[in-house]
Amino acid sequence: MRNFDYVNPTKVIFGKETINRIGSELKHDGIKKVLMLYGKSSIFNNGVYDTVVTSFKDNNIEYIELGGVKPNPVLSLVEEAIEKCRTHNIEAIIPVGGGSVYDSAKAIAAGAIYDGPVWDFFDGKARVKKALPIYGVLTLSATGSEMNGNSVVTKRDEDKKWAISGKALYPALSIIDPTVQFSLPRSQTINGAVDTITHVMELYCDKTPAVDIMKEYSEGIIRTTMKHTEVLIDQPDNYDSRAEFAWCATLALNGSNGTGRSGGDWSSHVIEHALSALYDIAHGAGLSIVFPAWAKYVYKEDVATFARFAEKVFAITDGSEEEKALAGIEALKDWYKKIGSPVSLKEANIPYEAIDALADNAAMNGPFGAMKELHRQDIVEILKLAAK
Amino acid sequence: MRNFDYVNPTKVIFGKETINRIGSELKHDGIKKVLMLYGKSSIFNNGVYDTVVTSFKDNNIEYIELGGVKPNPVLSLVEEAIEKCRTHNIEAIIPVGGGSVYDSAKAIAAGAIYDGPVWDFFDGKARVKKALPIYGVLTLSATGSEMNGNSVVTKRDEDKKWAISGKALYPALSIIDPTVQFSLPRSQTINGAVDTITHVMELYCDKTPAVDIMKEYSEGIIRTTMKHTEVLIDQPDNYDSRAEFAWCATLALNGSNGTGRSGGDWSSHVIEHALSALYDIAHGAGLSIVFPAWAKYVYKEDVATFARFAEKVFAITDGSEEEKALAGIEALKDWYKKIGSPVSLKEANIPYEAIDALADNAAMNGPFGAMKELHRQDIVEILKLAAK
Repeated sequence: MRNFDYVNPTKVIFGKETINRIGSELKHDGIKKVLMLYGKSSIFNNGVYDTVVTSFKDNNIEYIELGGVKPNPVLSLVEEAIEKCRTHNIEAIIPVGGGSVYDSAKAIAAGAIYDGPVWDFFDGKARVKKALPIYGVLTLSATGSEMNGNSVVTKRDEDKKWAISGKALYPALSIIDPTVQFSLPRSQTINGAVDTITHVMELYCDKTPAVDIMKEYSEGIIRTTMKHTEVLIDQPDNYDSRAEFAWCATLALNGSNGTGRSGGDWSSHVIEHALSALYDIAHGAGLSIVFPAWAKYVYKEDVATFARFAEKVFAITDGSEEEKALAGIEALKDWYKKIGSPVSLKEANIPYEAIDALADNAAMNGPFGAMKELHRQDIVEILKLAAK
Repeated sequence: MRNFDYVNPTKVIFGKETINRIGSELKHDGIKKVLMLYGKSSIFNNGVYDTVVTSFKDNNIEYIELGGVKPNPVLSLVEEAIEKCRTHNIEAIIPVGGGSVYDSAKAIAAGAIYDGPVWDFFDGKARVKKALPIYGVLTLSATGSEMNGNSVVTKRDEDKKWAISGKALYPALSIIDPTVQFSLPRSQTINGAVDTITHVMELYCDKTPAVDIMKEYSEGIIRTTMKHTEVLIDQPDNYDSRAEFAWCATLALNGSNGTGRSGGDWSSHVIEHALSALYDIAHGAGLSIVFPAWAKYVYKEDVATFARFAEKVFAITDGSEEEKALAGIEALKDWYKKIGSPVSLKEANIPYEAIDALADNAAMNGPFGAMKELHRQDIVEILKLAAK
């Protein structure tokens, strides 16, 4: 096991009818003026907007608001929000939405008190040392952004979907009420499941030996996510399954299953970011295409880990280690098909001819990969495996 | 799943050669004068004392020290330390030791800035709202005190071994270097394993349905603890096993496997506290006697949970649910025997005639128990099951 430092300062308030606590939590912490950030109309339809605003008013929290955050959130909106924060002396950012809204909020929180363009953090010219505090309300479980210090934003004019992370970016508070996810479109639940499982797998595919307890946690999150995703496809308003699903998505990327490891291998995320930067497909859909192809390309680097995955998650016990490893990857792909997530570029309407441009885009970040270092040609080969 | 609030503010620094970071962490947080608290001579023998003191000196941290904390730590030493803190204007408490030292440090931290006797917190006359910060160095993994807000202290003149808990009691920092546990007596490793497994089981035996992910985490901690305890009995200096064991002990009681549950059933701990209050036996040894007896007494309240435990931890798949439940409890008892922990009062030299006095002592806290409410007569019956 590797040495590690671990702390996660985010407070989570989880459960039914908890969103109305947002105002009193802000008041308790002495915050008086906030920017509320959200995406499209869903928070108006499911009552979340009204609950948040009423709670602000009940606790004398002054607020301004900004909507329109999109999936694969863009830099231009982040910059617009930063201007608002400066103009209005905003003290905290309140993302009300899913990962895109949270990720935008983090970039805004860092940029609002930085004397320079916020993209400096993304292209490595500056490091995030401080940020406005973030008090969020999660309405879509998938990215884990509600309890970590990561943010991914897209710079459209250069087709760059890049990430930052830092201690200052952990939300001070996240409220997770699974009931508001009852009304999600099925596709968003499916995308969330794929995102959660891929986060866990990218930590699982790691060369450090002997972190048994983290393997156990990882396998537990995947089994639980799969079980409850299947329930939710038929019963989107099953509370216990929504709750299990939501908490698994948070646990998948809040650091609790990463301790003692080497940091994982995030190649699938980097390659997927090229897909969603160039084709604006849902992140989860991109991952169900890329991860199995990546796994097939690299599994020989650590057959034992993939064989263990097959056994613990899919109860595959027959065959050699290599046969089990391959059967496990195939079983994951089959499960993605079963829940209705694409497993090939073709199914996502991305043409075979796009592979070169996708590889060029992903390779901007390269070489990358812990299990196997990937260069442009490796990315091309992986995308070919993902083609159809 | 139940609603919950979750936050764990403790920073953990984990791994080889990390203890020398204690001074710089204090300095970084602006702390200049501390009370260093420890138990017996072990920290002098294994070099930990020198490492801590050198780190203090290197960072200009002024310190006073107090040794002599005993297993089942007593109120009198806590009171002595509180006086020292007041006299010397101490800013932080530095427990260097195991759970007893940590638990004492928490009582001291709360008592030092409370205008009244510290026992007020234990007998419910006052609640802990603030405390001096705690920066600890863990040298014995068992209680989980290094990453939670709980403390258990014994008032010898009244034979009361009672607990407090509170947000203010979470350590600000715990440093866990598994290498310093290489030299532990075998019995302390065994006691630690029993304590860890019992903590997990007391959360596991809980009536809330549908917290699959917490069951998964619990089973993972137990399987990993058992695997590496067996390694450590033969190879006490196996680093990876010490590390897995240490991290499992922390995770068992840091709240990470308690979310969404009802809070568990801590009856075995309450009954064990009577054993160690009256007979001063090791806490782990008391638990390996009490827990299996308690489980046999209550399993009918939730056969499914005990059957699941049998299946997931001991791979017991034959028989009815009830047969599996009973076989799982017996398998745990057998495993405790195998590692050399007592499973009867007799083996711990506690006479059958003591049962009445033990039941009287435990019943002072009663009735208690979530899975089944226990009154004095129930405790007598459980102790009879534990007799031989």
